[in-house]
Amino acid sequence: MSEKIKIAIIGYGNVGRGVRSAVKANPDMELSLILSRSPQRVEKEVTDVSVRHVDDLEALKECSVAILCGGSKNDLPVQGPHFAANINTVDSYDNHSCIPDYFSKMNPVSKENNTVSVISTGWDPGTFSLERVLGNAFLPGTKTYGFYGVSKKGGLSMGHSDALRTIDGVADARQYTHAIPEAIERVRRGENPDLKPEEMHWRECYVVLKEGADAEKVEKEITTMPAYFAPYKTKVHFISAEELAKNHAGFPHGGMVIGAGSLGDGNNGTIEYSNTWDSNPAATASILVAHARAAHRLAKEKKYGAYTILDIPPAYFSPKTHDELLAEFL
Amino acid sequence: MSEKIKIAIIGYGNVGRGVRSAVKANPDMELSLILSRSPQRVEKEVTDVSVRHVDDLEALKECSVAILCGGSKNDLPVQGPHFAANINTVDSYDNHSCIPDYFSKMNPVSKENNTVSVISTGWDPGTFSLERVLGNAFLPGTKTYGFYGVSKKGGLSMGHSDALRTIDGVADARQYTHAIPEAIERVRRGENPDLKPEEMHWRECYVVLKEGADAEKVEKEITTMPAYFAPYKTKVHFISAEELAKNHAGFPHGGMVIGAGSLGDGNNGTIEYSNTWDSNPAATASILVAHARAAHRLAKEKKYGAYTILDIPPAYFSPKTHDELLAEFL
Repeated sequence: MSEKIKIAIIGYGNVGRGVRSAVKANPDMELSLILSRSPQRVEKEVTDVSVRHVDDLEALKECSVAILCGGSKNDLPVQGPHFAANINTVDSYDNHSCIPDYFSKMNPVSKENNTVSVISTGWDPGTFSLERVLGNAFLPGTKTYGFYGVSKKGGLSMGHSDALRTIDGVADARQYTHAIPEAIERVRRGENPDLKPEEMHWRECYVVLKEGADAEKVEKEITTMPAYFAPYKTKVHFISAEELAKNHAGFPHGGMVIGAGSLGDGNNGTIEYSNTWDSNPAATASILVAHARAAHRLAKEKKYGAYTILDIPPAYFSPKTHDELLAEFL
Repeated sequence: MSEKIKIAIIGYGNVGRGVRSAVKANPDMELSLILSRSPQRVEKEVTDVSVRHVDDLEALKECSVAILCGGSKNDLPVQGPHFAANINTVDSYDNHSCIPDYFSKMNPVSKENNTVSVISTGWDPGTFSLERVLGNAFLPGTKTYGFYGVSKKGGLSMGHSDALRTIDGVADARQYTHAIPEAIERVRRGENPDLKPEEMHWRECYVVLKEGADAEKVEKEITTMPAYFAPYKTKVHFISAEELAKNHAGFPHGGMVIGAGSLGDGNNGTIEYSNTWDSNPAATASILVAHARAAHRLAKEKKYGAYTILDIPPAYFSPKTHDELLAEFL
């Protein structure tokens, strides 16, 4: 049995916790280190893994791959190039419009320092990106569409929940995004329609008011908030703090990618990919961990540089050998 | 604009016809040549492309990639190594249990002759293989399940249709495979059940009897035919030749891959991939053509040898540049 892949977690929040669980589910890996800005906080929760301050690059030398679990807004643009200069990395940088710029920073750093960095992976960007590319390639010229919150409960949006909490009079809140089924059906029929964002999704808010807050005024502020809610059909429920804690503590999410178009000669085809997750950060973490396996292997082969999910042969994600994959999975 | 990728078709049946259509839908390619055992037959149908005898290896030298459109039983085991010694190839070899052996023959031939051969692609083996591997890697240890014939009409099985036609008294016939919805629901719920083939699918037969044939006897022969029908719930409809021609002339098919399992810490996830095709051979052809693009690029990079869909970075299938993919698809 070959040696286990030694994983480090950088940043211990919800995704970091998910990575810790996911590593346990992958017998070819072990969690060797957690780096955090507040190691003392993390040590209260984690006693079986070495926890060090985020500046302790020396401790990282024992590890093969660092999974960067910080946020895309402030952490990753700095931490990405910093850690990629020292170790193989995997991250979920998800600011879509800035990904080309992020790639162009990570690629030279990784090449110069003989590391592999896998950027912007998870489920979107990540598996959804992959399916968009495959759908467009296998049904040539077909537009692919992404829908979110396709399960009954919808998909919990952290960004929109945060936006609700900025409103005066709101004590706490959750926002679920829902796909609009009629839009999905139009895409499935191969119409390749032009759809505005508000034709694809609607938004459901669960809001706990502060004492004495004016519900009508809060609801109006929500439904008229530009970009976040104004263009969308938005439904607001006012609930108690107890109900929020009981029914809305989790992070469910999920979505689908659909492409439908012509195979030529009057024949059509439809390709759909969907996933549903009880926990969005746990799902992201589980996918990050499989990418850490790929990063480890690419580095062993000295194929240094930055990668996205589009640049990695899928066999690299699997713990199975190539012979096993051909015999059992192809 | 760079030069178009020159494609050759080897064997002009339903898949070959589909490749011809699919190449037209991909502006970076052109169909340069068709090789056939009966060029005279093909020339009656195709007047705008050079058609030569299958032994004319000289004509192939103008082309970059040959798409092998022959059958898996008799053609590809011989044609695969033969053509891979001369040109980059793509094929849809689909005899699952023999794929490891086929790979082990194609890989050294391609390496020794500086060609790229992409084997066993299409939708199954092909995109379904890819999704089985990704499902198992991203939901660690999860079994992935394949269901076929998920659309209302079901999936037309050529093999089972052929089996029906061997029965005494049968003039013509079509068999549609249907997925059993209850089995899909068990998998979606994350039960990871052990399912026998007959618990996953049932079979629907449309049979045209020869004059004077005994319908009851034919039906009994069908439903008791070992392996093909006996273990399955099977429904037989006797119809006229006219009705068969009117309603059952096409090759619709499709299916889905599902994996459902644990993300750790009590959270579950489900990944589903499905496709529906008006025409099974046209779908296979469209996917083969995208793989020809990958073969062409891998050969340009001198990365010679045999590949499956599991061994190719997905970006290689797309006509888009890497910059475009990062900006528009990731």
